Amino acid sequence: AMNIGRSLAVLMKCGTDSVSLFSVSPAAERLRHILGEDDNTPTPTIFTEMDTLQNEGGEIEWKESARWVKFEEKVEEGGERWSKPHVSTLTLHSLFELRTCLQTGSILLDLEGYSLPQIVDEIVDRQIADGLIPPDLKEKISFVLLRKHRHQTKKPIHRSLADIGKSSSAASSEFVRQAQSRSMNDISDTPSTDQLKNKFMKKIPRDAEASNVLVGEVDFLDKPFVSFVRLAQATTLGGLTEVPVPTRFLFILLGPQGKTKSYNEIGRAIATLMVDDLFSDVAYKARDREDLIAGVDEFLDEVIVLPPGEWDPKIRIEPPKKVPSAEMRHLGQMNGSAGGAAGGEDTEFPAPHELGEELKFTGRFAGGLWLDIKRKAPWICSDIYDGFHIQSISAVVFIYLGCITNAITFGGLLGDATDNYQGVMESFLGTALAGTVFCAFSGQPLIILSSTGPILIFEKLLYEFSKSNGIDYMELRLWIGIHSCLQCFLLVVTDASYIIKYMTRFTEEGFSSLISFIFISDAIKKMDTYHKITPPDYITSYKCECISTITIRHTSVKDAVGETYKTNFLSYLLKLTLYMDWSQLSKKECVNYGGTLVGNSCKYVPDLALMSFILFFGTYSMTVSLKKFKFSRYFPTTLRKLISDFAIFMSIMSFVGLDMLMGLDTPKLIVPTEVKPTRPDRGWLVMPFGKNPWWWYVASFVPALLVTILIFMDQQISAVIVNRKENKLKKGCGYHLDLFWVGVLMAACSFMGLPWYVAATVISIAHIDSLKMESESSAPGEQPQFLGVREQRLTGIMVFVLTGLSVFLAPVLQYIPMPVLYGVFLYMGVASLSGIQFWERIKLYLMPPKHQPDFSFLRHVPLRRVHLFTLVQIVCLAVLWILKSTFLAIIFPVMILGLMVVRKLLDLMFSQHDLAWLDDILPDKDKKTKEDDKKKKRNKKAAEPESDEEPNSSVPPPVKIPMEAIESHTEPVPVHVNPPAQNQTSDCEYTDPFLHLLLCQIVVSCVNV
Amino acid sequence: AMNIGRSLAVLMKCGTDSVSLFSVSPAAERLRHILGEDDNTPTPTIFTEMDTLQNEGGEIEWKESARWVKFEEKVEEGGERWSKPHVSTLTLHSLFELRTCLQTGSILLDLEGYSLPQIVDEIVDRQIADGLIPPDLKEKISFVLLRKHRHQTKKPIHRSLADIGKSSSAASSEFVRQAQSRSMNDISDTPSTDQLKNKFMKKIPRDAEASNVLVGEVDFLDKPFVSFVRLAQATTLGGLTEVPVPTRFLFILLGPQGKTKSYNEIGRAIATLMVDDLFSDVAYKARDREDLIAGVDEFLDEVIVLPPGEWDPKIRIEPPKKVPSAEMRHLGQMNGSAGGAAGGEDTEFPAPHELGEELKFTGRFAGGLWLDIKRKAPWICSDIYDGFHIQSISAVVFIYLGCITNAITFGGLLGDATDNYQGVMESFLGTALAGTVFCAFSGQPLIILSSTGPILIFEKLLYEFSKSNGIDYMELRLWIGIHSCLQCFLLVVTDASYIIKYMTRFTEEGFSSLISFIFISDAIKKMDTYHKITPPDYITSYKCECISTITIRHTSVKDAVGETYKTNFLSYLLKLTLYMDWSQLSKKECVNYGGTLVGNSCKYVPDLALMSFILFFGTYSMTVSLKKFKFSRYFPTTLRKLISDFAIFMSIMSFVGLDMLMGLDTPKLIVPTEVKPTRPDRGWLVMPFGKNPWWWYVASFVPALLVTILIFMDQQISAVIVNRKENKLKKGCGYHLDLFWVGVLMAACSFMGLPWYVAATVISIAHIDSLKMESESSAPGEQPQFLGVREQRLTGIMVFVLTGLSVFLAPVLQYIPMPVLYGVFLYMGVASLSGIQFWERIKLYLMPPKHQPDFSFLRHVPLRRVHLFTLVQIVCLAVLWILKSTFLAIIFPVMILGLMVVRKLLDLMFSQHDLAWLDDILPDKDKKTKEDDKKKKRNKKAAEPESDEEPNSSVPPPVKIPMEAIESHTEPVPVHVNPPAQNQTSDCEYTDPFLHLLLCQIVVSCVNV
Repeated sequence: AMNIGRSLAVLMKCGTDSVSLFSVSPAAERLRHILGEDDNTPTPTIFTEMDTLQNEGGEIEWKESARWVKFEEKVEEGGERWSKPHVSTLTLHSLFELRTCLQTGSILLDLEGYSLPQIVDEIVDRQIADGLIPPDLKEKISFVLLRKHRHQTKKPIHRSLADIGKSSSAASSEFVRQAQSRSMNDISDTPSTDQLKNKFMKKIPRDAEASNVLVGEVDFLDKPFVSFVRLAQATTLGGLTEVPVPTRFLFILLGPQGKTKSYNEIGRAIATLMVDDLFSDVAYKARDREDLIAGVDEFLDEVIVLPPGEWDPKIRIEPPKKVPSAEMRHLGQMNGSAGGAAGGEDTEFPAPHELGEELKFTGRFAGGLWLDIKRKAPWICSDIYDGFHIQSISAVVFIYLGCITNAITFGGLLGDATDNYQGVMESFLGTALAGTVFCAFSGQPLIILSSTGPILIFEKLLYEFSKSNGIDYMELRLWIGIHSCLQCFLLVVTDASYIIKYMTRFTEEGFSSLISFIFISDAIKKMDTYHKITPPDYITSYKCECISTITIRHTSVKDAVGETYKTNFLSYLLKLTLYMDWSQLSKKECVNYGGTLVGNSCKYVPDLALMSFILFFGTYSMTVSLKKFKFSRYFPTTLRKLISDFAIFMSIMSFVGLDMLMGLDTPKLIVPTEVKPTRPDRGWLVMPFGKNPWWWYVASFVPALLVTILIFMDQQISAVIVNRKENKLKKGCGYHLDLFWVGVLMAACSFMGLPWYVAATVISIAHIDSLKMESESSAPGEQPQFLGVREQRLTGIMVFVLTGLSVFLAPVLQYIPMPVLYGVFLYMGVASLSGIQFWERIKLYLMPPKHQPDFSFLRHVPLRRVHLFTLVQIVCLAVLWILKSTFLAIIFPVMILGLMVVRKLLDLMFSQHDLAWLDDILPDKDKKTKEDDKKKKRNKKAAEPESDEEPNSSVPPPVKIPMEAIESHTEPVPVHVNPPAQNQTSDCEYTDPFLHLLLCQIVVSCVNV
Repeated sequence: AMNIGRSLAVLMKCGTDSVSLFSVSPAAERLRHILGEDDNTPTPTIFTEMDTLQNEGGEIEWKESARWVKFEEKVEEGGERWSKPHVSTLTLHSLFELRTCLQTGSILLDLEGYSLPQIVDEIVDRQIADGLIPPDLKEKISFVLLRKHRHQTKKPIHRSLADIGKSSSAASSEFVRQAQSRSMNDISDTPSTDQLKNKFMKKIPRDAEASNVLVGEVDFLDKPFVSFVRLAQATTLGGLTEVPVPTRFLFILLGPQGKTKSYNEIGRAIATLMVDDLFSDVAYKARDREDLIAGVDEFLDEVIVLPPGEWDPKIRIEPPKKVPSAEMRHLGQMNGSAGGAAGGEDTEFPAPHELGEELKFTGRFAGGLWLDIKRKAPWICSDIYDGFHIQSISAVVFIYLGCITNAITFGGLLGDATDNYQGVMESFLGTALAGTVFCAFSGQPLIILSSTGPILIFEKLLYEFSKSNGIDYMELRLWIGIHSCLQCFLLVVTDASYIIKYMTRFTEEGFSSLISFIFISDAIKKMDTYHKITPPDYITSYKCECISTITIRHTSVKDAVGETYKTNFLSYLLKLTLYMDWSQLSKKECVNYGGTLVGNSCKYVPDLALMSFILFFGTYSMTVSLKKFKFSRYFPTTLRKLISDFAIFMSIMSFVGLDMLMGLDTPKLIVPTEVKPTRPDRGWLVMPFGKNPWWWYVASFVPALLVTILIFMDQQISAVIVNRKENKLKKGCGYHLDLFWVGVLMAACSFMGLPWYVAATVISIAHIDSLKMESESSAPGEQPQFLGVREQRLTGIMVFVLTGLSVFLAPVLQYIPMPVLYGVFLYMGVASLSGIQFWERIKLYLMPPKHQPDFSFLRHVPLRRVHLFTLVQIVCLAVLWILKSTFLAIIFPVMILGLMVVRKLLDLMFSQHDLAWLDDILPDKDKKTKEDDKKKKRNKKAAEPESDEEPNSSVPPPVKIPMEAIESHTEPVPVHVNPPAQNQTSDCEYTDPFLHLLLCQIVVSCVNV
């Protein structure tokens, strides 16, 4: 008797040939041959459906029990539903049994098949020809194989009702007709409407081909009937598959009774194999049975094994976020480096920090600018049409609200600082102008320009200086702007932005968290300025009475009334005014009737402080919750995504609604409604000559230098953060082009007396975040991947055009309470903090090591080094924060240079290895490391088997034992105490050109101040 | 050349014997022999440590690289830390290689070993004797094996500093000495202080023995040196293991250079095997090499396989919540039902609903009560001393605050309803008395007694009735109490509580969610009663002036001043009073000086509404967050547990603090400070005779009947919820005893004129929740298990004693604002809702099927049936809610009976299969199902191989093909259209005795009303 299986134990015990696992196995060699020889045409994706034979109420049919696109989905028998996609956990057993099946069953490769009956005929004939089954079983087997297929999409309740409707007699007569016909076929050749209507189709790639697995037990067989078929052409075989996908593979397993469970497991095993990238390649290209078996063996060689005592097999494993790509595995296959996959080490060094060729020093005049233009030019059209997407609307609303809040805040502050030479109106117009121009022409249109703190402080100091020295502020400012613009041009043409590549994560994080903290503290500070709560005990001291001002003109009015008795209405009105109870009037009425509010509590607004708090905190927390809603289980994915995208808009709307409902007099957003300069004595154009002595035109070069450094650092560091590799930007950036336009706008704004603008980190990050794209998950269970950012100029331009038009939107905008907008500010600040590694590292302080998340840097750097690095960052940040709070805020961007110096000094404290994980290696160090690597590689013996591995991998050197010492028993053994590793790698080159440059710049800027 | 490995492909191709997998394999048979023959002494737990050979700076040493208690912890090389415990993912490769190692290496079982050098000697000698290594390698191998072991606990930085301190010469001379000595041994025999200090020891069970795995590559071997040693006695081998655990097993693998990675994988494989429950048994009991290999084979047979394309081997799999127990696996082993573990089906029917023997109908007089007393008696002592635990304190505080809030709320309402015949004071005393007695003597001391809504409504109606009919309320009430008490006794002695077992999840859920909703809506309603916010526009109408009342007695006082000029101080005071600016005084000062507050806004308190909202919502959300804090990553586990346990206390404290800080006049908790009846004309004792006509003493029997039903249902349904199987109560319960004491207290309270008390569902659930125990996680990575509830009488008694003493705690309690307490109420309501399956099912409405969690009932019941069931529950709840809001609230407990009727009717709508998953099967149905099972079992053929499986498992019947039809090609085939399954199982027995009983009771109770 032939059994389908073969005991594992027997299988294992046999064969004692000594073949090293590290040489390429015959299976791998075979596969390399068939996979390598081909013209590398990509094989189609395979959709696998497994149907099992069911006997329900005497009716035999094939019922879908599971399907695979990439992961397994099972039909929950009782629940009549699809399970969640999960990783197929198999037993080793079933795989071995499958292997035996393929060894003993009939394998039909490249069968010419056009319909299922014909194919079934061929299969059964082959089995008979091979002597595997007696010829008299042919009809029985054909009959079973041609039964109807019931798929999970069909609602069983409908079907059974329909069946009952047909009446049993009709059904039986039909059955007879079928039974009499030669084909005995329940299956039609054309796809049914059920198939075509199946929505699941869109989850399957267009090029997909189906593989059908049919397993079942019958009572007429005493040994299993196994067949693996590959059709020459993928053919639609009627209702065989639940979706109208042509079938390429067929696996049939019919066996004697009593082992359904094990047949199902074998079916699951082949189905899992068929959707495996590597095995499906093998299946497409196999020349014979041996190739297929080699494919199974290679699969077995790669499987990951979970020990039975540490894992409950009932747990359905959710699909992982990422699976090794087929290419990587292919490569592994080709190189014969089988095994060793599980528990594999990550590489010792992280992927190096790349800033791309944008920051190369060209050495030519305006070489960088030219490259920038060349890089951005091809995207001109797509920069516009990529903007047409629903997501853009939410981004525009979000950023617009951020921008006008910013414009109003900074406008107000600037107005205070400069006696309204630059007020809210100027701030709005300037933001609109600068933003539109920048977004339309810059190298990185995702950057949002805005007023920033350092500029504000500079203006304040400048205004005080000019006022006390009797110099015309606007004219002086214009000249500083002109000089600064020219200096920017100088930096552009000399490719000076290349210095930015010395900015590592350390500097970036320091800068962006500082900016975020400023955002958060500003938002909270603003809230704090609202009216305080007074204990209710002092209510007695509150008084606000309405006093009729007309009483002053009492008698005169009375006379007037007597005289002008003709105008009845007026008299009535006057009477009313005179004799009505003024104390009963409300505040508004009182003012309307011309009364005066007298009392110390007229300005006090009860409930206001708490209401503001509720609006502020409510907006913030609702935004956070709605943003998180994307990851909840409720509602379909698209709806959740929409809610998440419009989270800020919805929160603002809700709390504006709440505010209107409560009717409290919360401070509202007030935008100017008329286009005119805030200060009546200035025009829209500043004349360059006439008001100040001529030498000021030259002397303004010096303060301009400071402004230039300020602008350069602020602009470029924000650009670096926006252009981070994590954001997966595809259209490239343009540091030089950006700076060019900032310079141009500098001059333009100076001429018009508008504030100066520079990239705003937090809002730019918010802009990017609101434009992030994710892949639609294709196969069920596959995680959506972050694809990149919707890079275009449209949202930016829209935001700033809207800002310009805000003057006309005033009637709508006046309903928005300021606390709501500060809530948005708070959200922006907190959101830009999250995802910063620095922040994650701070959290580590509070976690016991065993609860810490599995960050890759924690695997490679000792915790105390990580903590030390974080501490340095915290100290730097604290120092910056303190400096920022003093008048030194003006040299804020210079402090960023200071951060870079600190980073440079960190090379002395930390090994390059640690820094590579926690930060990035500085460019020159990086080069050195690479050179070291090369040297190491050269030194390696060519014969070394693992030469393909990472050069810095943690393979320790083999233990060399000083045998002489042991053998002679007398000679002293030299013990080599190597110096600690970090001393070896970190080198203290104080002559470093970069450090020199930095120090020079600092000295220069200090002299300038 | 002998290689350690053998190619998988070669291994698979060989041997073509046909051995069915379904017969027991030789390996399994062998294992059954060795595992079955023994006296079943439990084998010790094994701690495995894997050390690898390192050559750092010329110094050779063994370095710990991973350890296993149950799950794997790896040393992160760079991070110098332990990884998180994770499931060991192995390669099939390494397992096969290990198998080869065990086949070719030397196996030393029950070696007499007392020190490492001696053991190493034995191992090497054996290898030489077996001809596996040439004798000249002995010293080299011994030298390597006796090198020092460095464990992860030692801080490498200290070590290296210490090494440098020693100076190289000293070190080398020491080395020479060692090298000269015969032992060449770096290892001491006694445990080092490092070992003893290791805190990891407490994670290892006391009886543990160690297994040491040593792998490494050396340059003098050209084939691997493999040895597996089992010592006759577990022996502490010095610094071999990081903890002072005696070593029992040793696995040594030394091999030629270049394959470190593969050696490590083999080491991990044997280590994983050693901690496997089954293999470690085999390892302890193995008689020879073949037994060990059989163990490996059985392990392989059980492993779970993940396909390489669907899983990233780099992911460290977190330990699952539950792993199959060793016993279960043992059993599987014994029965030879190998394989088929992965993707295993769960059983078709869930575990049946068990109410235990507490509700059996004894048929004897007071039989149930007697059993209850017998059951509870042995726990008397432990009921007290189990209460001494820190957790009890937080439970007491939590429940105490809940109780006094309840007492005050219901006290106030009762006072309103009965013209203060029963007020807050009575409520406090009654709660204290009833609660203390019940907690001290009842069957289930975890139940908290409290006033409930239905009782309140009854009292209200009763008072109105007596007032309008001129009957003395207190006397009537006393007689109702006496009758009701007697009726309760009647119910107790007749074991009437057994009716409760007809209460299924459906009824329980309906009841407890209704009570929760009432809690939540009460909390929110209470908040709503606070002062509304008035728009600030009307501030002009607010006025509150202080007017000196002394001005009335103006002249007389002035005269008096003149006369009594001697008393200077008084005169000064009077002067001050007369001439001071009264309008400048605060409210409190005004009242203190005897002034009068005049004005319409004196009662208005600004900011109060919003402050109350903030306190209410803040307390609630802070409690929720702190409760969740247990699952965060921050701080050590014990601290987090403490925070979570004291969440409510901390939230209350924080918001009391905030309230004090703001100084607003929020409504505070005011408890009576003097022990006297609220109404002065009543005493502490009610006389039974004298005030009402005699026939009232008899007639009060009728209303008493309603009260009895009310109490019976309210009490017993809460008891069922408390005694739920999920709570894992160990000390049993006592429905009859509970009811007995409720009856006694009923009479006692009536005599003292105190309110009546009955079990309060929500507070009782909160009580249980605050006393839940979890196991300390033993092995790293193992999930803590819910162990049960701290069942004792102490917390309950403490709560009620404190309630009684609250009269004296008034000075402290007066700082607690009521909104904070309503926040606690809200939390209680919401918390008792969570975890109810009904609630989970409601959420399903909002989730698309693919995002629904993997509830077991969803796997077995079609979604539309689940939704239908939920809908029925929602409708029932809505009806109950509407009824509750009318005067019908008094028959509220009767409505629970109505729920039970609805549940009975559901038998007609749903199949028993569906109900078994969504609800529980009613007792008589349950019996029937079991009988059916038995019948089915009897009908099953004895020869069936899978007879041990669940009788209702989803194995479909084998497909029987009516072969005659095919063979004859002429006869019509009969198609059996079976009636739908649900009609088969649900039977419409309207003569059901239970239904009859229910209907009778309803009729009786209606007549009574």
